[in-house]
Amino acid sequence: MSLSSLTLNETHDTELRSWVPSANADGCPFPIQNLPYGVFRRAGSEEDFRVGVAIGDQILDLPAAQSAGAFSGFDEATRQAAHAACSGSRLNALMALTPASWSALRLALSHLLRTASPHQTELAACLVPQAQAEYDVPAAIGDYTDFYTSIHHATTVGKLFRPDNPLLPNYKWVPIGYHGRVSSIAVSGQQFRRPLGQTKAPDADAPTFGPCKRLDYELEIGIFIGGGNAMGEPVPMEEAEDKVFGLCLLNDWSARDVQAWEYQPLGPFLSKSFASTISPWIVTLEALAPYRCSWSRPDGDPQPLPYLDAPTLRTQGAFDVQLEVLIQTAAMRQAGQPPQRLSLSNYRDAYWTVAQLVTHHTVNGCNLRPGDFLGSGTLSGPAPDEAGSLLELTTGGKSPLTLASGEKRVFLEDGDTIILRAVARRDGLPLIGFGESAGTVLPARSQG
Amino acid sequence: MSLSSLTLNETHDTELRSWVPSANADGCPFPIQNLPYGVFRRAGSEEDFRVGVAIGDQILDLPAAQSAGAFSGFDEATRQAAHAACSGSRLNALMALTPASWSALRLALSHLLRTASPHQTELAACLVPQAQAEYDVPAAIGDYTDFYTSIHHATTVGKLFRPDNPLLPNYKWVPIGYHGRVSSIAVSGQQFRRPLGQTKAPDADAPTFGPCKRLDYELEIGIFIGGGNAMGEPVPMEEAEDKVFGLCLLNDWSARDVQAWEYQPLGPFLSKSFASTISPWIVTLEALAPYRCSWSRPDGDPQPLPYLDAPTLRTQGAFDVQLEVLIQTAAMRQAGQPPQRLSLSNYRDAYWTVAQLVTHHTVNGCNLRPGDFLGSGTLSGPAPDEAGSLLELTTGGKSPLTLASGEKRVFLEDGDTIILRAVARRDGLPLIGFGESAGTVLPARSQG
Repeated sequence: MSLSSLTLNETHDTELRSWVPSANADGCPFPIQNLPYGVFRRAGSEEDFRVGVAIGDQILDLPAAQSAGAFSGFDEATRQAAHAACSGSRLNALMALTPASWSALRLALSHLLRTASPHQTELAACLVPQAQAEYDVPAAIGDYTDFYTSIHHATTVGKLFRPDNPLLPNYKWVPIGYHGRVSSIAVSGQQFRRPLGQTKAPDADAPTFGPCKRLDYELEIGIFIGGGNAMGEPVPMEEAEDKVFGLCLLNDWSARDVQAWEYQPLGPFLSKSFASTISPWIVTLEALAPYRCSWSRPDGDPQPLPYLDAPTLRTQGAFDVQLEVLIQTAAMRQAGQPPQRLSLSNYRDAYWTVAQLVTHHTVNGCNLRPGDFLGSGTLSGPAPDEAGSLLELTTGGKSPLTLASGEKRVFLEDGDTIILRAVARRDGLPLIGFGESAGTVLPARSQG
Repeated sequence: MSLSSLTLNETHDTELRSWVPSANADGCPFPIQNLPYGVFRRAGSEEDFRVGVAIGDQILDLPAAQSAGAFSGFDEATRQAAHAACSGSRLNALMALTPASWSALRLALSHLLRTASPHQTELAACLVPQAQAEYDVPAAIGDYTDFYTSIHHATTVGKLFRPDNPLLPNYKWVPIGYHGRVSSIAVSGQQFRRPLGQTKAPDADAPTFGPCKRLDYELEIGIFIGGGNAMGEPVPMEEAEDKVFGLCLLNDWSARDVQAWEYQPLGPFLSKSFASTISPWIVTLEALAPYRCSWSRPDGDPQPLPYLDAPTLRTQGAFDVQLEVLIQTAAMRQAGQPPQRLSLSNYRDAYWTVAQLVTHHTVNGCNLRPGDFLGSGTLSGPAPDEAGSLLELTTGGKSPLTLASGEKRVFLEDGDTIILRAVARRDGLPLIGFGESAGTVLPARSQG
């Protein structure tokens, strides 16, 4: 059983409808073909977080469904997967199982939630409205690795930092990545203080200390690892996607002025570690199977080294997922104005695929563990207005954006909320949504 | 109660002796003035790992001592600390307490293990010989950050990578650090396969894939965080050492050829993530209090920015800990030859102190959690033979070392074992040992 074989099955049937009415509405991000996992509880309660599945505007409470006997009629593999999903306040135990187990549980959920399910009555009592829920980071993340997979982002940013040498010679050979900070990853709704730090003006003799002046967002896809590998045992490309539980959204907030001063020679550190905001729902690779698409390199670019190549890479290596960034300033919020779009891009434009990231990460023997988290890096498209950060959209802060509210932005101001959204869509197929990652900048801490 | 106030107390009394005879032997690394923590079980058993304290050539099994009632006569704070230490297979619960709690437990252990303790009989039954024990990583590490605190290392290595620009302009202002990989950290005794990876010769058009040819060790001090801080709440210098549970040894194995090709622009990644080997014992800051020493900058160097400065920094900011690296090749092992010293250096020569690392790490609001781990970076001294890596000792692989066995080394060969050791010593005081970090290079995995 391999997800990378891209098998479509009855859970992908476009005709399926759910007995949860909101799941059948046009444009609903969570139709019965999606079934993403998260951990939730009733907002403001002291309940333990538990695993749920988004369906329409509701959440199916998995432990409640299990207690109601919903899984008792299914086979052993399904019951084991359901048991793992209900065993704690995070998804790690489910993630530690195999694609066959994940698929079995998905099929069971599809049966339980579709119209004419004999379990509708007891499961209706296991629904919690999303509007009444709060979320936590869905897995205990052991390690977080951030990659740099958009060549458009790498080139545009490279021009700002190194005008004479925008794209480094390793870019087209090595899926560049670095380790990130786990402790400051939080789920959508995160509010964080503008970071303090050292910065140095190009013409200054010495650095100064104070609030970051070039605070930015980064639009990324997050990748949750399931399964993992033993130390010393690299994961070949053919098996790489079997190690991936699913995808979410990630905002890798960045302090550009801190980064410019600190990043040589060991890479970004405090410029990235103050906050990272993910969406609460993990969309499984199986749900995304109908939205896979071809992957290719521009003519003249080197093909991947053999260890990063695979038979299915070019036909279905990529994901056709549209990505959107929106901003809502404090003034917009006060005036009742909705968030305004800053950019649209698509994950299919990434230079390196999910499978290549997993294989490269492990090729030196490094072990991945269930719940580990990878970031795609900022996902900018080829056009300038497809940029996934303000650094790119404002040409390094030189070209301010004028918002519909009349406000101007080069970098983020206190009170700004950045919202990331993503949807997979294809003619004739239901839309599969990721939900959103929203985060808000608070004023810097007083330096008293 | 602050450890940073460097209060010496009765646990530091040089006259103290233990009823464990080996603890009183000259040169014993674990006298009663040390009392480092680790997690252990009987070698080859299926027992759960549990917390122990090294005393002489024995380990006091803390849960066994608690069951024997050893802590029942102590005050509430001590009993709570003992309970935390006995609550699991890692030290995180004890680490999450305060310096006052750590100090209370240390005082109790000092009383229990000193000569004339009324508990000698029942505690003698709670000893496990170190020769019969195996160890695990002593804490569940949430995040690992590696720093770069030796200016001698940074300068020597900088010359190799950037001859015209050895020490970057930020070095004397910013405690340079980057996030490291947690999953591949293991305790002394780690054996790991030579990593595979991409490398590129300077004159080649394209990279090649294969086993690392420039495998190296790095001599570091590891720093275990206790307590931690909330997101958005930086730790000021005055409180920084209260967040530190203790120190150990760390070998940050490095694939230099992989590093040279991958590290721009986001820093080291696969060159460091295949293995990291720590010593099993954590020596507490309280045990090291008598071995604190002054810290200073060379004349003409900038003084730290105010957020990285503190009243006690210059008088007692550093640790006088002697560091040693030894090698034992496969041929030496077969011939019964002991490990041979490669270098000696001292932690007091670091350019940035432990407190500065903690404060800098959190100044942007980043949260540290109990059990988080910091590396000092390679600790090379000012003299060439005090270098903490082969890269430095062999001038980038250009000047082979000749070992007593007649073998030559530029970088590590398969079968080589590298052993790190450390001791704090001062006239009139007992020697405080760290134990050792030993790790062995296995042949690369076949690329079949």
